[in-house]
Amino acid sequence: MGNIIDPLPSWHEGDIKRSIISFIERVCDQHSEHFVPIENRIATFDNDGTLIVEKPVLAQVAYFKRKLLDEDVLVTTSKLRRTMHWAKEILFDSLSILKLGFTFFRKGITTEEYRASVAKWISHAKHPRFKTHYTNLAYQPMLEVLAYFEQNGFSNYIVSGSTANFIRPWSQDTYQVSVNRVIGSSLKTRLSLRGDSLAVKLEPIPFSIESRARKVLSIERRIAKRPIAAFGNSFGDVDMLRWTTDSNALCVLIHHTDEVREYKYSPNSRFRWFGKNTLCYAKSLNWHVVDMKKDWKIIFNLTAKRKC
Amino acid sequence: MGNIIDPLPSWHEGDIKRSIISFIERVCDQHSEHFVPIENRIATFDNDGTLIVEKPVLAQVAYFKRKLLDEDVLVTTSKLRRTMHWAKEILFDSLSILKLGFTFFRKGITTEEYRASVAKWISHAKHPRFKTHYTNLAYQPMLEVLAYFEQNGFSNYIVSGSTANFIRPWSQDTYQVSVNRVIGSSLKTRLSLRGDSLAVKLEPIPFSIESRARKVLSIERRIAKRPIAAFGNSFGDVDMLRWTTDSNALCVLIHHTDEVREYKYSPNSRFRWFGKNTLCYAKSLNWHVVDMKKDWKIIFNLTAKRKC
Repeated sequence: MGNIIDPLPSWHEGDIKRSIISFIERVCDQHSEHFVPIENRIATFDNDGTLIVEKPVLAQVAYFKRKLLDEDVLVTTSKLRRTMHWAKEILFDSLSILKLGFTFFRKGITTEEYRASVAKWISHAKHPRFKTHYTNLAYQPMLEVLAYFEQNGFSNYIVSGSTANFIRPWSQDTYQVSVNRVIGSSLKTRLSLRGDSLAVKLEPIPFSIESRARKVLSIERRIAKRPIAAFGNSFGDVDMLRWTTDSNALCVLIHHTDEVREYKYSPNSRFRWFGKNTLCYAKSLNWHVVDMKKDWKIIFNLTAKRKC
Repeated sequence: MGNIIDPLPSWHEGDIKRSIISFIERVCDQHSEHFVPIENRIATFDNDGTLIVEKPVLAQVAYFKRKLLDEDVLVTTSKLRRTMHWAKEILFDSLSILKLGFTFFRKGITTEEYRASVAKWISHAKHPRFKTHYTNLAYQPMLEVLAYFEQNGFSNYIVSGSTANFIRPWSQDTYQVSVNRVIGSSLKTRLSLRGDSLAVKLEPIPFSIESRARKVLSIERRIAKRPIAAFGNSFGDVDMLRWTTDSNALCVLIHHTDEVREYKYSPNSRFRWFGKNTLCYAKSLNWHVVDMKKDWKIIFNLTAKRKC
């Protein structure tokens, strides 16, 4: 590539790196038959497990646990113990996050207070294994993809099962994705008076849980355009990737294969009765499957980030 | 103003024009104590009656009527007559649009088909009084406000009681507002298979009706920032303007006072039991009230647009 700067230095040379670069060159070249005008360069990214570590528990769940432990006015010890046990059982289910949130949101905090509380927590909390801030555990190769897309006129959207307001306080600094481009699960809200001014309060009732078909419906409702690139890592992302699949599109599934540097687990659903599973879809629809162990030179860029 | 180009040439010199210009200068001047960084320059605009003519019927309603008349396979004549009578009775209620849409959307069209159908209709349909395309009846002074805001780094959002997908096909050309910045009422959707590929189908069930408090909740859910400017014209916009109200913000209510050049009607709610009414709020919260007859030199720029 001569003196051209490598846009994806943390990726090993190989099929997937080549495919990402040739995709960008193809859709951004005005003389290409696959050229896509800038306003249609939409890319959607799942968050947990696609852009950032999601094991041993989602950051969202770690936050709720901490808040529940802090606020003993809010919950009795026995209630907490029951919630914890239950949360441990089905920890990776988006629904469980919202159920765990139920206890937390009974207090009736506003959306602005919730985001402020997350901002405070995320600036202090440390990941139990890597002993660093959660935001330092975004995948370096994926940060390079986000930046590469952005530099080529793409609008990057995050589409997550975690609540949008959990990701927004740190999406700009971590991913360079602005708050209005974060689509996520959410609770019902109501407009109420606090003193003389209006406040938007969260209610402990799910409004939308962004998983599977819901991701597509929210993309369509919010962006009203079909993405030309999508990245995911689990069964919850399959519909989003299917929605994006097209001969000219880029669909990528992150496969967690590296128990030494990160974690090793399957992108397939834990529930067999869902039938055809994530890796089968990837194969039959020709998605690119990233083997983290083989495809990524580094996973985290901790040396640079620990300074923060 | 010397040789500086007037950003609002269709506005008569006066309090409101001065207030808009001084607002922009105040929030965009880095040396001003009221400076607002570019990422927080959010402005929200109601659509019908604020940016474009809404009388004698909303464009959305005119569209539904046309479609119902066209598609006699879909509805029997008697059903249509009943719907029409009923629609005439409560024509300006957002809910009625969705109810009228109910009949239309029973067919199970996709969001993409709906937008294509609107795009086709809007390029042909003529307004009954002004005998020109609906999109030519956007208010020239408001188009100047949108452009002036945009040039000063603002993100302009439309927040409408009409369906978002009704406005999206023409929002870019008419207002320079991209489809992802159109927030509007919507129907429930579902992901379904059409042949081999996925399609998002509309269901005849309201998902969200954007009026009053809902406008605030949607702004908060989507943008997650409080606007610093808001424009509306009816009781349905009061909460959005209240949410924006702040000593440093710009809140504007359009008052339709010109039955010769446009229409004359009150921004107050037709329902007295709502208590405090639109003009009372405007007075007590110091919103700017545009008197269309006195404040706007021209309302439509038809000579230039008829060419299209």
